[in-house]
Amino acid sequence: METSVKQLEAFFNPSSIAVVGATKRINKAGHVIFKNFVENKRRGVFKGEIFPVNPCEDSILGVQCYRTVTDVPGKLDLVVIVVPAKIVPSIMKDAATKKAKTVVIISSGFGEIGNHELENQVVAIAKKAGIRILGPNCLGVYDSRTGVDMLFLPETKILTTGDEVIATPRPIPGDIAIVTQSGAFGVAALDYLTGRQIGISKFVSFGNKCDVTETEMLHYLLYDEETKVILLYVEDIKTGREFLQVAKKVTRKKPIVAIKSGRTEAGARAAASHTGAIAGSDRIYDTVFAQTGVFRAKDMEEFFDAGKALAMQPPANGLNVGLITDAGGPGIMAVDECVLKGLIVKRFSEKTVLKFEKLKDEGKLPKFATNLNPVDITGSATSEMFECAAEILFQDHEINGIVMLGLHHTPALQEDYIDRVARVASKHNKPIVACDIGETEMALHTRSRFDKLDIPAYGSPEDAARAMNALMRYGQYLKQNKLFTTYLQAFMKAKRKQ
Amino acid sequence: METSVKQLEAFFNPSSIAVVGATKRINKAGHVIFKNFVENKRRGVFKGEIFPVNPCEDSILGVQCYRTVTDVPGKLDLVVIVVPAKIVPSIMKDAATKKAKTVVIISSGFGEIGNHELENQVVAIAKKAGIRILGPNCLGVYDSRTGVDMLFLPETKILTTGDEVIATPRPIPGDIAIVTQSGAFGVAALDYLTGRQIGISKFVSFGNKCDVTETEMLHYLLYDEETKVILLYVEDIKTGREFLQVAKKVTRKKPIVAIKSGRTEAGARAAASHTGAIAGSDRIYDTVFAQTGVFRAKDMEEFFDAGKALAMQPPANGLNVGLITDAGGPGIMAVDECVLKGLIVKRFSEKTVLKFEKLKDEGKLPKFATNLNPVDITGSATSEMFECAAEILFQDHEINGIVMLGLHHTPALQEDYIDRVARVASKHNKPIVACDIGETEMALHTRSRFDKLDIPAYGSPEDAARAMNALMRYGQYLKQNKLFTTYLQAFMKAKRKQ
Repeated sequence: METSVKQLEAFFNPSSIAVVGATKRINKAGHVIFKNFVENKRRGVFKGEIFPVNPCEDSILGVQCYRTVTDVPGKLDLVVIVVPAKIVPSIMKDAATKKAKTVVIISSGFGEIGNHELENQVVAIAKKAGIRILGPNCLGVYDSRTGVDMLFLPETKILTTGDEVIATPRPIPGDIAIVTQSGAFGVAALDYLTGRQIGISKFVSFGNKCDVTETEMLHYLLYDEETKVILLYVEDIKTGREFLQVAKKVTRKKPIVAIKSGRTEAGARAAASHTGAIAGSDRIYDTVFAQTGVFRAKDMEEFFDAGKALAMQPPANGLNVGLITDAGGPGIMAVDECVLKGLIVKRFSEKTVLKFEKLKDEGKLPKFATNLNPVDITGSATSEMFECAAEILFQDHEINGIVMLGLHHTPALQEDYIDRVARVASKHNKPIVACDIGETEMALHTRSRFDKLDIPAYGSPEDAARAMNALMRYGQYLKQNKLFTTYLQAFMKAKRKQ
Repeated sequence: METSVKQLEAFFNPSSIAVVGATKRINKAGHVIFKNFVENKRRGVFKGEIFPVNPCEDSILGVQCYRTVTDVPGKLDLVVIVVPAKIVPSIMKDAATKKAKTVVIISSGFGEIGNHELENQVVAIAKKAGIRILGPNCLGVYDSRTGVDMLFLPETKILTTGDEVIATPRPIPGDIAIVTQSGAFGVAALDYLTGRQIGISKFVSFGNKCDVTETEMLHYLLYDEETKVILLYVEDIKTGREFLQVAKKVTRKKPIVAIKSGRTEAGARAAASHTGAIAGSDRIYDTVFAQTGVFRAKDMEEFFDAGKALAMQPPANGLNVGLITDAGGPGIMAVDECVLKGLIVKRFSEKTVLKFEKLKDEGKLPKFATNLNPVDITGSATSEMFECAAEILFQDHEINGIVMLGLHHTPALQEDYIDRVARVASKHNKPIVACDIGETEMALHTRSRFDKLDIPAYGSPEDAARAMNALMRYGQYLKQNKLFTTYLQAFMKAKRKQ
């Protein structure tokens, strides 16, 4: 790992941290952040030293408080700043004196509202002292394993009924890193991923990116062993050339899925007034993403769906999709979406058709099952039928990826088909995604069971098709750059290790 | 109501029904369907007479059984047939002798597998006797208010853990009718709508449509007081001219949202092998839908989202969208999607901007809130801010519809903002849709609360934008045909009655 990248480690795993602006007032961001660290330390998750800094307090939550950053004993890896913008420069000077490695400036009131001079002042101090800054105007970092947690949004809220409910949840530890320019979108992503039981490795909200950019974060995450896939939300990328270089390097090893918002003129205008982003033509981003193998998601749902698919399944060695379904209509909808995305759904080979015909003759598939692609095993589907149909498509070298629609409503289908198909899938290195439609117990259970067995499952035929598209496009990029085999081997090796 | 349409009433509210193929064997469709009726009768929901027909049984579930349809005493409104295809013609003859009004043929094994002759035979008997047939190869009818329930899929399933869970749920009574060619998609829709707490009026799966078509069902639903919006899934429409006429008539009064699958060549090939649909060019459907004001959904999610929006909100009197957000990034995403759908997001008028500026001066909106469109009230948002920002946009005659993103994560925002905004909305007849992102408790609660107050809420910015698009497109169609004011008045009148 390069030195410049290594320094960023202090954001995620500091051995000592000061929270400047820590306070006893429970609704304040400075309280919530400090408390997050204290609680994670008590739970044995956060292992570093924690120092509250506030000239007006002796101790906070039972921890001795310091007047200034310079008063803190020992070395400081990380300083989290949660004080009004105007006094941030003086805190930065203290951090420089203290030789702190990194600073996260949560506070807003800088470039995003036109205070460029104040922001420049802060940057100048950091540059001189060799300090790296994340922010300002950001939510900072959440690391699911080290206990670093700077999310200051209220963890719970009280409803009008008087009930207290979780308002800002944290996802379980997992493989996906989130790097976001919008803090609000970031925290919403955490809420989404928690509810869908998708785990994350790290979360970084970089706000005004006065120093550390999305590009550097991507570079850092390239070396992060916990991260397999990176989800990136940006409104602009200022260091285009650098991004091009780094993203190319990262996508050799780890897929990146991006939302670049402000795609339209009105959207770009809104972005300009949001983060001051001057985005340039949206087409340039299309080009940059295509050149670097970054999968550009068209909306929020595709963003998460693609991330999940790429974390769980290997990329595809071509654009030919094979579909299995127990529901005719939804099967057609999946085919439509595959083709609209530029994937190929062609008739199965003679050999594969013969295999299906044989199974029909043996009574192992329904007599009237169609096998043109999709293979429609109809409402008479059983777990065994799904298993053997999947086996045939996995064996067919002309099929590069499988979309399986197992609507649980059919009378004879039992839950064990999920495990059976997963067992077949585990013997191959060809991607498969699943779909069951419904929002009640059995559908939720079915999708969750698939997910647990690393077959990403989706709630609509089109979502499943789009997820397969992400796996095929990433595979296509890897192949074009002669990286496919290397990536696939590393992916399968990591999978076996789990 | 025309006579031909009136006859169809017997499918949904029969005063007497025979279930041919009723049996004691609990896993059989004939058992499940008969039991549905018996239970709904016991619960006081189904008010008609029920007669099981089966030559091998004396009684089923305590109800006297008849050898043939002709043996059943009194008149018969409806005969539900659940016996093997080959004996269906003889049952049809009995039904003809009995002068039954309508027949639902659940059984498969007809045209969809090439048995056209058998299907023609059945149709010939019906035509001669003046019987109307739904099916064959269908799931029949579910009516949420009369207790007609022909869904034979197992209501529960047993998981490998031994737990029994609901597998085929029924949505609550509501305003939306579902008319579907694909039974599997239909039952999946019921599952989806139940989970999302969206109510339905009627469900019709018409399968091979050997007699009654989607067009006739649309016509029937035009007169159905319980139905405000129709969701239609089709793979082909054979009676094009008739559809054109009827759909035009229906959409004057009730919006229709359609999925026509088989949009691509591969999809159409799959449709042909599924229901024998010969769909013709997909562009023709685009034209037909555009001419008749049918909103064509691009995928499953949009299908349901548009249906919900059109059931809860009035159509828009133009294409100008005004957005309110407490989250910059998601606000931009919503703007992007609006513009990509062809809607207009322009800067607010001078007058509206001045109103926002005044609120800022009075300290009622954050000093740094941008008000270019979206108005971004930032992470400092309070319930009062949402209320007064919404009021301003509702008053602005240049804004035809409002997309409101209230991400609940912001510290000061409380649940009561939902009720406050709903109160403002209720004073106007301009559509509004809401978005909160997240899949855990608070987000689910927020969206559900919005829905209950008839403001349709969505889980992503793009979904909210697409829902607004449906409201604006329907409004545009009504305006083009000088129907807007009439529809709006009827809609608002019905709303006040609730």
